[in-house]
Amino acid sequence: MTAGSWVPDADGSGFSLANLPYGVAELATNEFHVCVAIGNHALDLAAAAAKGLFDTLDIPLTVWRQAALNAFLGLSAEKRRAVRERIRSLLSTPDPRKRAAVEACLLDRSALRMTSPIAPGDFVDFYSSYHHAVRTMQLMRAELNANWTSMPVGYHSRTGTIVGTDQPIFRPKGQILTPDGPIYAPTRALDIELEIGFVICRASKRGQPISVSEFGDYVFGLVLLNDWSARDLQRFESAPLGPFLAKSFCTQAGSWVVPLEALTEYRVEKNPEHQQPTLGYLRHGEKWSFDISLEISISSTAMRERELPPQRVSQTNFRDMYWDGAQQLAHLTGNGASVRVGDLYGSGTVSGPTEDSAGCLVELTQGGVKKIVLSDGSTRDYLQDGDRVELRGVCEKAGHPAIDFGSLAGTVHPAL
Amino acid sequence: MTAGSWVPDADGSGFSLANLPYGVAELATNEFHVCVAIGNHALDLAAAAAKGLFDTLDIPLTVWRQAALNAFLGLSAEKRRAVRERIRSLLSTPDPRKRAAVEACLLDRSALRMTSPIAPGDFVDFYSSYHHAVRTMQLMRAELNANWTSMPVGYHSRTGTIVGTDQPIFRPKGQILTPDGPIYAPTRALDIELEIGFVICRASKRGQPISVSEFGDYVFGLVLLNDWSARDLQRFESAPLGPFLAKSFCTQAGSWVVPLEALTEYRVEKNPEHQQPTLGYLRHGEKWSFDISLEISISSTAMRERELPPQRVSQTNFRDMYWDGAQQLAHLTGNGASVRVGDLYGSGTVSGPTEDSAGCLVELTQGGVKKIVLSDGSTRDYLQDGDRVELRGVCEKAGHPAIDFGSLAGTVHPAL
Repeated sequence: MTAGSWVPDADGSGFSLANLPYGVAELATNEFHVCVAIGNHALDLAAAAAKGLFDTLDIPLTVWRQAALNAFLGLSAEKRRAVRERIRSLLSTPDPRKRAAVEACLLDRSALRMTSPIAPGDFVDFYSSYHHAVRTMQLMRAELNANWTSMPVGYHSRTGTIVGTDQPIFRPKGQILTPDGPIYAPTRALDIELEIGFVICRASKRGQPISVSEFGDYVFGLVLLNDWSARDLQRFESAPLGPFLAKSFCTQAGSWVVPLEALTEYRVEKNPEHQQPTLGYLRHGEKWSFDISLEISISSTAMRERELPPQRVSQTNFRDMYWDGAQQLAHLTGNGASVRVGDLYGSGTVSGPTEDSAGCLVELTQGGVKKIVLSDGSTRDYLQDGDRVELRGVCEKAGHPAIDFGSLAGTVHPAL
Repeated sequence: MTAGSWVPDADGSGFSLANLPYGVAELATNEFHVCVAIGNHALDLAAAAAKGLFDTLDIPLTVWRQAALNAFLGLSAEKRRAVRERIRSLLSTPDPRKRAAVEACLLDRSALRMTSPIAPGDFVDFYSSYHHAVRTMQLMRAELNANWTSMPVGYHSRTGTIVGTDQPIFRPKGQILTPDGPIYAPTRALDIELEIGFVICRASKRGQPISVSEFGDYVFGLVLLNDWSARDLQRFESAPLGPFLAKSFCTQAGSWVVPLEALTEYRVEKNPEHQQPTLGYLRHGEKWSFDISLEISISSTAMRERELPPQRVSQTNFRDMYWDGAQQLAHLTGNGASVRVGDLYGSGTVSGPTEDSAGCLVELTQGGVKKIVLSDGSTRDYLQDGDRVELRGVCEKAGHPAIDFGSLAGTVHPAL
């Protein structure tokens, strides 16, 4: 980073010129515009393109007027790089004539209604935190399965129920096994899973695996994910085909997809205890672990009424994952399954080694045994109607600009 | 059915005016046209609409020029009914002026290159044949899980690898557990699963389950499915999140989606032994079982070289399923998961009560123990490279027109 931005609040924030993540805003006109976050603002790329600020880039205006980033992601890598360079230039240039035009395209980020920037054809969710896997198996008095250290275990989940931030989360109903037999009722064990999602920008051919070394060519960037879960439904339904209704009711995606380029300074070596020997197609020497601080906070209806701040219930870091995104992509295509532009895969719950660094409530409360005491005096094992859950992610390191993933929030509504 | 069709080979065939299933042909120009099968022909609906034969129906021409049926499925039920009536009228009318115009839109069906007519946003696959579930669990020396008779157990699978008939099936690689530990290698247990798919024509809202009584409003029709499977991959990877790479490499969809209206005469009572009491949201008094005869045949490369006919290895019937499509849809949305137009869900392997009526090789060969002897003298436990698998489905009953689902074929290619 050389020059800073003329946007007053950008330098020194997590949304400086070093970040420039992409999102999609739904305007008051119900139009969708692709945006880039800068400081407390967002640059409306549809407006900027219409003003001719992207001239010479040869990108159809419609790319910036979509309800998701897929059309942008489908541009060539060269074009996407040129867009990033152009945006950086527009936001840092001292040229007063251009600055006025750009200024006219800046929106107040806090007032924007953001939608999910991703609309994947397929969504695979992994289970790649060792601490999460061990702790959840312990809660079921089981051992880690034999396959776990041999492959990134994963499954497909539902794409049609992926929503953005601030969308209602309807408490799902489903079959719960009680001492009197199964009942169909609203879940009594509503949970969240803090994850990072990987967003695909290049299609592959059926029959042709993507190698671990091609990760950077196929993945555009990272995004916060909340994989909402109903633990009682999951317990009863999962054998032998895995979680289904316990997960398919809703997954939330963060508002901002952070490009891989923005994370260069935060790529780290894998934790030595996670460097087990693996089969060749999963082996690589690249630093594809990321140092991203993550946290979960909760506020109840009563806390919000009394204007108490959200309460942080977990703090963790993405660097501690056992399987990384390159290994996950190589595995998910290792059978020849093809990917499409816009596809999504999730890291799995991000849980650290300590109990207070877990990425879901079932771990934090040891299966509902150890209650969380909220600042309004109430306790939680799982979520109650009215609870608002907020995930945050940020990369921070002395001497380098911070990279903010923003906030991803959802409020629990009663079952309809 | 009153009048017959003037198309010479239609009456008395499984593609008479009583059927009129929808498909998508890829023309020599690489354009995709929606078609309806009639006898040995297909009526090109894009051509018919361009000739004004759908005038007054008020349907954009682009609906008929899509690589899948989604735009057509998204029309209102009234419009879809009007299209069916119009097609029936065009193919049965003796009006000589119209007949010439329609005749010009008839294509030779055997020469058509058909693509998968479905392009679902989400694909859920069930596991709803009692005989299949019991037999596969027996092979693993396990009992049927406690949830099985309480709910239609299912999982999400991959949409991006759904292909049509006559597409190459690349043998998938994956992790196989050997006595010396896991290896990454081409599957040694390539199998198929004969299924029926249900195609959605109406979107629902997130948070709002679809009731069993709404099945007919949400499902447009039925289609053959082949859920290709790799049993060795499946065995090692499936605990605890279910099948993943064992299934995601390819699912094939039949060329013709048969509308529910065409199946009225073939709706049957559920088999009495499958009428267990169930939870309220899965209970209904409608006849949503279908009497569809299904068969699997195989031909090896050597058989085809020697011009030996494909060998039938299984014959079964869809009427024998435990959970029906109405129950599956009510379950899959029972947690508030929404569906979109074009979504697909599969019945799960259709296996009958006898050993030779199973819908997959792992059952037919008792886990590879009892070999299938082919007419070229070779034997099979699982599929070899070069093997061609063909599924067929047809409804037949004395005094009623037959309803043909066509043929769905795929040939195994070596791993790339």
